[in-house]
Amino acid sequence: MSLEEIASCLGGKVVGDPGVKIYQVGSLERAEKGQIAFLSNSRYKSKLASTCASAIVLAEESAGYTSLPCIVADDPYVYFARLSTLLNPVRRLAAGRHVTAIDASAEIAPCASIGAGATIAANVRIGERSTVGPGCHLGEGVQIGADCVLHAGVTVYSGCRIGARAILHSGSVIGADGFGFANDKGQWLKIPQIGAVVLGDDVEIGANTTVDRGAIDDTVIEDGVKLDNQIQIGHNCRIGAHTAMAGCVAVVGSARIGKYCTIGAGAIILGHLHIADHVEVSAATVITRSIQASGTYSGFFPFDDNRSWTRNAVLVRHLSEYVERIRQLESRLSELEKKNV
Amino acid sequence: MSLEEIASCLGGKVVGDPGVKIYQVGSLERAEKGQIAFLSNSRYKSKLASTCASAIVLAEESAGYTSLPCIVADDPYVYFARLSTLLNPVRRLAAGRHVTAIDASAEIAPCASIGAGATIAANVRIGERSTVGPGCHLGEGVQIGADCVLHAGVTVYSGCRIGARAILHSGSVIGADGFGFANDKGQWLKIPQIGAVVLGDDVEIGANTTVDRGAIDDTVIEDGVKLDNQIQIGHNCRIGAHTAMAGCVAVVGSARIGKYCTIGAGAIILGHLHIADHVEVSAATVITRSIQASGTYSGFFPFDDNRSWTRNAVLVRHLSEYVERIRQLESRLSELEKKNV
Amino acid sequence: MSLEEIASCLGGKVVGDPGVKIYQVGSLERAEKGQIAFLSNSRYKSKLASTCASAIVLAEESAGYTSLPCIVADDPYVYFARLSTLLNPVRRLAAGRHVTAIDASAEIAPCASIGAGATIAANVRIGERSTVGPGCHLGEGVQIGADCVLHAGVTVYSGCRIGARAILHSGSVIGADGFGFANDKGQWLKIPQIGAVVLGDDVEIGANTTVDRGAIDDTVIEDGVKLDNQIQIGHNCRIGAHTAMAGCVAVVGSARIGKYCTIGAGAIILGHLHIADHVEVSAATVITRSIQASGTYSGFFPFDDNRSWTRNAVLVRHLSEYVERIRQLESRLSELEKKNV
Repeated sequence: MSLEEIASCLGGKVVGDPGVKIYQVGSLERAEKGQIAFLSNSRYKSKLASTCASAIVLAEESAGYTSLPCIVADDPYVYFARLSTLLNPVRRLAAGRHVTAIDASAEIAPCASIGAGATIAANVRIGERSTVGPGCHLGEGVQIGADCVLHAGVTVYSGCRIGARAILHSGSVIGADGFGFANDKGQWLKIPQIGAVVLGDDVEIGANTTVDRGAIDDTVIEDGVKLDNQIQIGHNCRIGAHTAMAGCVAVVGSARIGKYCTIGAGAIILGHLHIADHVEVSAATVITRSIQASGTYSGFFPFDDNRSWTRNAVLVRHLSEYVERIRQLESRLSELEKKNV
Repeated sequence: MSLEEIASCLGGKVVGDPGVKIYQVGSLERAEKGQIAFLSNSRYKSKLASTCASAIVLAEESAGYTSLPCIVADDPYVYFARLSTLLNPVRRLAAGRHVTAIDASAEIAPCASIGAGATIAANVRIGERSTVGPGCHLGEGVQIGADCVLHAGVTVYSGCRIGARAILHSGSVIGADGFGFANDKGQWLKIPQIGAVVLGDDVEIGANTTVDRGAIDDTVIEDGVKLDNQIQIGHNCRIGAHTAMAGCVAVVGSARIGKYCTIGAGAIILGHLHIADHVEVSAATVITRSIQASGTYSGFFPFDDNRSWTRNAVLVRHLSEYVERIRQLESRLSELEKKNV
Repeated sequence: MSLEEIASCLGGKVVGDPGVKIYQVGSLERAEKGQIAFLSNSRYKSKLASTCASAIVLAEESAGYTSLPCIVADDPYVYFARLSTLLNPVRRLAAGRHVTAIDASAEIAPCASIGAGATIAANVRIGERSTVGPGCHLGEGVQIGADCVLHAGVTVYSGCRIGARAILHSGSVIGADGFGFANDKGQWLKIPQIGAVVLGDDVEIGANTTVDRGAIDDTVIEDGVKLDNQIQIGHNCRIGAHTAMAGCVAVVGSARIGKYCTIGAGAIILGHLHIADHVEVSAATVITRSIQASGTYSGFFPFDDNRSWTRNAVLVRHLSEYVERIRQLESRLSELEKKNV
């Protein structure tokens, strides 16, 4: 679609050549020719200089930041959501009841094995000696390397790629949509999640663990990463090689975790953070800012018998008052000490 | 069954007309004619005045609170559990091996699509253009609106109803039993969960998220709610329209969350609380009491390097002592200041 | 294999009779004749005296602790991981596409029922009147007692045993591999998880809850235990009879929880701890040491409006300084009081 056609569908004002052809959305960092990116936060305007995108969706006040063709929109993020939806319509199964479990176009190594009831969509490739357990579901174009074991009931969404010797436990879901919505006057507008998930070699994924597909670029789990059960990895995260996470960890979208890290059970890593290599996060710790230095980091409320905890925990909510009382005591005491020299 | 027949099965003393017919249990608030409710906590006795239930299970000491026919029982909640089990026997599949995946009574719109290996029980209805992915399981009487997408491996238990344009990701489970047990001398007696789950229009449910069916009344997710992955919604919760929750949130039973709220990753909302509209809960925060005012609420232990955290966190358990020492300092200092005027 | 053959495969030095035959690995506590155990931490050397293992893998410095035949290895745990992998090769499905959903060797009670699309491997036994829902997957040798209900989409890995009257909700996974790896110069070496999961009678397991199989010995859930949704039970845990856990609890490996306990939503129990009977753990509490006495235990940061929380929480990271300032105030004040007597 040309910018002109897009604007006639979705509104907005074209600045620059209205005939520029757009086939897909992209991120400022990785967009290629023919892709359109967006700038919704002027903090990121420096990325405009180096982007390879063919056009940009941005707000009126940002229009001067770039000489690329633009669509000026009231809310660039909402506009981008609508545009991506236009370019990436939901792909539904053809109407009717499907009975063919394994699509004829799938390339399955002769020494691989496929369990009863597994479904394998078009253009899937499965490597040598890999096992796809009963009831697994592999979406279109999924690639599974050699010597993998997918236990019963694993789901891999379309386009995700899994390296050699992976072990995926039952109930794990690789490549479900990341949680991406633009807020359009209180209502949530879904942003198509067009990235995929890429798993390196020797990765193990625990039972009922979920790894979301990227919004635009991919979510990446590097070689040798081991994830325990019930872990959630948000969209566009990158987990460094040989990092291990215990059960129930949550990693929010776009976090980048280094190599050789260990993350304790139930820890939460907030989004967009960078964690250095060789970082150890204790169980139940909430990481709220980036960590540059290797080491061990902790943070949770120490438990106590309920009566003691109740007595003490309530005081935490008044710490600033107590600190102020300490300051006043210090100042009054200094005053008194002067008199008593 | 008449009250007399119930009492002859389960014990208890009938007060009032023993011939009153009961076909189902109900809650004090919503029971209809022919239903029996229970009062196990005299705090709720004011509800007796307005209930439409035909009879009440209650304790000896509460028998005077109502003129409705009653069954007086030692432990009304345990009695109620047994009675509900009697009226709602577990429905098992017929013996033998089932091979029919789609029941003949299901009404599936001609332009809907059903993936390979999906199973669809009796009296299911599936709306126009909806897709039921491979390996999904829809229990008896499930209703799916138009234009829904159920990705591979979604389970919807019997009786649950899903509005238009829902997106349900793989591994999500809608309508499993709520966690309801009466404690009968240390052992847990299951309370049949006879409510359902009702999802409004435009709801998205993340991978491996679970929404439990109601104990008696329904669990309700209103229009436009977006739930990320690995979220747990307990029985009888109501989540207000256009509320969004990030991954790994737990909402305990009977909580009511307002409209336009956002709940951060890993937050926990305890049971029976009411949260107002437009409330933002930060990640990892534990909400332990109702919130009446819109705004942002937070609460977790800030992380630190392990050595610092260890040094400081242990002191949290002695805060009340330190506060007492501050008080004593203040009083001693005041004393001294008086002398030094 | 003899110790000599093992050493010729994997290296290490045999001390004692090199002809001793080993067929399996075992734990020091429960190994039987023909099994080899390991000692990687000299803290546990007292267990060497009573072990029934036929041989031990240990480090040079521990070689004097036992008169049993030994293999001396640089890193006994890494060696053990390799040895267990040698003795327990991954069992893959036979190559090719499997279409038989129910193995002929399965013993299914005539009055049991099997839903469409369920897969049942060799030597499974299913008791009287039990229901295996559509799309369930039962691995080799699984045993299901009488009167059980497995809802749609439950997975039970090979060798796990489930007592009578169990209710397993959709998406629950029983017997996936525990999270066990030896760290071999930064890379994680998988330790085969050869224990199973044993569920007693009258156990209920919530939707998407996971219970991992033991590393060597079994993970055990005793009679009457009720687990809500999205719970993670690590390998080799033992959960005492009639204990109930609310949603999203994480129990890390080798924890032992007593009978009649209740664990609140989102609580985390760290590994290798012992919790006494009749212990109540509040929601969101992190249990970091063993609990000997019954009672209620709590520990989480109380929430507040964001502004207040921000003001107070930051001070928690400086508590030790404030306590020191209180100490100095006390000492200075005492000094002054002496002068003012």
